[in-house]
Amino acid sequence: MTEAGVTRVYAGIDVGGTKTMFCVTGGSGEILLLERRDTAAHEAPGPFMAWLFGELAQLLAGIQLEVSQLAGIGIGFPGVIGDTEGCLTQAPSLPWPAEDIRPLIRRYYAGRIYLDNDVNLALLGECWKGAAEGKEHVLMITVGTGIGSAMLLNGRLYKGADFAAGEAGYMIVDAAQDRYRLPASRAGFGPLEAVASGSGITARARAWFAEAELLGGTFSRILELAGGGVAKIDARHVLQAAEEGDRAALSLMDRPLEHLAAAIASAAVLLNPQLVVLGGGVAASGGYYMKEIRERAGKYLPFPVNIEPARLGNTAGAVGAAAAAAAILW
Amino acid sequence: MTEAGVTRVYAGIDVGGTKTMFCVTGGSGEILLLERRDTAAHEAPGPFMAWLFGELAQLLAGIQLEVSQLAGIGIGFPGVIGDTEGCLTQAPSLPWPAEDIRPLIRRYYAGRIYLDNDVNLALLGECWKGAAEGKEHVLMITVGTGIGSAMLLNGRLYKGADFAAGEAGYMIVDAAQDRYRLPASRAGFGPLEAVASGSGITARARAWFAEAELLGGTFSRILELAGGGVAKIDARHVLQAAEEGDRAALSLMDRPLEHLAAAIASAAVLLNPQLVVLGGGVAASGGYYMKEIRERAGKYLPFPVNIEPARLGNTAGAVGAAAAAAAILW
Repeated sequence: MTEAGVTRVYAGIDVGGTKTMFCVTGGSGEILLLERRDTAAHEAPGPFMAWLFGELAQLLAGIQLEVSQLAGIGIGFPGVIGDTEGCLTQAPSLPWPAEDIRPLIRRYYAGRIYLDNDVNLALLGECWKGAAEGKEHVLMITVGTGIGSAMLLNGRLYKGADFAAGEAGYMIVDAAQDRYRLPASRAGFGPLEAVASGSGITARARAWFAEAELLGGTFSRILELAGGGVAKIDARHVLQAAEEGDRAALSLMDRPLEHLAAAIASAAVLLNPQLVVLGGGVAASGGYYMKEIRERAGKYLPFPVNIEPARLGNTAGAVGAAAAAAAILW
Repeated sequence: MTEAGVTRVYAGIDVGGTKTMFCVTGGSGEILLLERRDTAAHEAPGPFMAWLFGELAQLLAGIQLEVSQLAGIGIGFPGVIGDTEGCLTQAPSLPWPAEDIRPLIRRYYAGRIYLDNDVNLALLGECWKGAAEGKEHVLMITVGTGIGSAMLLNGRLYKGADFAAGEAGYMIVDAAQDRYRLPASRAGFGPLEAVASGSGITARARAWFAEAELLGGTFSRILELAGGGVAKIDARHVLQAAEEGDRAALSLMDRPLEHLAAAIASAAVLLNPQLVVLGGGVAASGGYYMKEIRERAGKYLPFPVNIEPARLGNTAGAVGAAAAAAAILW
C-alpha cells in the first residue's frame, strides 16, 4: 500500500501476441517507466501470470517500487474479456483454456485491477494523452494485421451486450461481393479486414505479382523494396511504394483504401463521433495513407468528420491501461 | 398542477409531416388516450405550437383534464433538435426558420418538457411497451419513405456529438457503386436509403416496368395491384406481390433486402446490440420481408443477432414521448 502523502502509482500492461508493453505512471499522469518485453508463450493463463508479474516486479525494482505498492493495475489483452466471467476469448494469439483469470492475478496483487481488450485500452490511452485528448465521442479504428475498433460514447467505453462491440473487421462495404461468401465465422478474418488490413494488402499484392510473373514479369518499386521475391512482399512495401508514387502500389491500394474509407463513413454516420482516430501499423504508414482515407471518406459523408492518426503508437494500450487502473474498478 | 394523491399524467406527441399522434399516459404506464390528427401546415414554429396545444387541450378535455395538469410533455419531430439551441433542423417536412422552439412551448405549458427526434422516441416506446422491453443495448432501424435509426446504448439514448447519430440511410454497403456518386449531402437521400427505403423500392420498380413496356410489356402481380399503370406502382405493391411469390417482385426486392441486411450486419458488429428492432412501413409489410432480412443478415454476421419487428407501429413515437416526459427533464 502506498503511504499517505506519497503519490499513487499505477501500472498499465498491454499484452500482445509477440510483445508486451509495460507502463508505470504517477498519480498526476507522468510516465515513470515504459518498457517492452517479448511475450512469453504459455499455454494456460496461470503460468502466464507468473511470468507477467515476475517481469513487472523486475521492472518496478528498477525504480525502487514493489507490485504491492501500486494503487492499481490495468491489463489489456488481444481478445475479449467478459466482465462477468473474466475469461479471455477470441484471442487467437493467446489460445488459453476458458478460465477466470482474475483469481490468478489475485495471487500476485490485491489492489484495483482493470482488464479489457487491447483496442479499448489503446483508445483510452489516446483519450488521455494522445489524439483524442478531452473528447467524449470517439471512434478508434486500428488497421494492422487485422482490423479492430473501439468506441468512447458519452465519455465511456462502449462494449456492447456481450463485450463484442467494435468488430469493425466484419463490416460490409461491398455487399455485391460479400454476399457470396460462406456464413461469417469469428474464427476467420471479416470481409473488411480481408481487403483493407495489412494481411489483406499483403495477400493482394502477392497475388498480383504472381500473376504478373506469369505474364513475363513487371517492374515495381514494391519488388525492389521486398528484395525481389514475390513471397517476400509485405503490406509495408506496398505502402512505402505508394507513398513514393509507384503506379502498381497506387493501384493495389485503391480497393483497401476505398473499403476502409467506406467503413469509416458508415460507422461515422451511425455514431456521429467528434473524432475518428486511426491506429495500427498500416494507418501509421505515412501522409499518403491518411490523405487518401480523409478524401475518400469525405466523399461518402453527409457531414464533416475529423479523422486523425493515433499519436501514441504501440504505447497507447499500456498508457490507456494505466489510465483505466487509475480511474475504474471491478 | 396535479394534486397530492392524484396519479401523475403525461402526454407524448409525435409530430409527423402529415399526421400527428397524441398519447396520454397515467403514472404507472396505462394509456389513457391515443389519437391521431392531420398535421396542420404552418410555416413557422410559433403558429404551429398554437395549433398543437389547441389540439392537445381539446383531446385532454375529453378525459376531463387540462394541459396545466400534465406532469410532463414529450414531443417528437421528424428532424434533429439540438439540446443546446432548441432549433429543429434536417426536417424536410417541417421547413421552419431556425428558432428556439422551447420558449414557444413555454407559452402553453410550464412543466417538464422533453423534445427529441421521432425515431429516438419510437425506440423509447418500443423499449417501454414494445419489442425491446427491458433491453439495455438496442439498435432500431426504421424503413419507410427514408431510412432512419436510433440507438439505446447502456440503457440510454445515444445521440452523438451533434445529435446527428443514427443516420443509417447514409451507410455504405456497396462501395463499388457508391464511390462514383457526387459528394454526399444531407439534403438528398443517402446511398442506403436510395436503394432500400420505400422510395428506393418504388423508383426501382417503376424504372423496371418502364423498361419492360419498351420491350413489349410484361405481366406481374405488381401491375395488377397498382391498377395497371407504371406511374401508380408503389413499394407497397412490390412488397405485397413478393409476399405472394411474384417473380418480378422477388427479383426487384433482392437488392433492397441485401443492402438493408448488410447495413444491419455492419451496425450490429460495431454495436453488439441485444436486439435490432425493425420499424417503419416497409419493415411492417409482412413475414416475407422479416424472414429475408434475418437470413441475409445472418449470413454476414459472425455472432447471432436477434432481429425483431417493431410492435407499436405508428404509435411508438407518441408512446415513447410520454415515456420520456415521465423520466427525463431538460
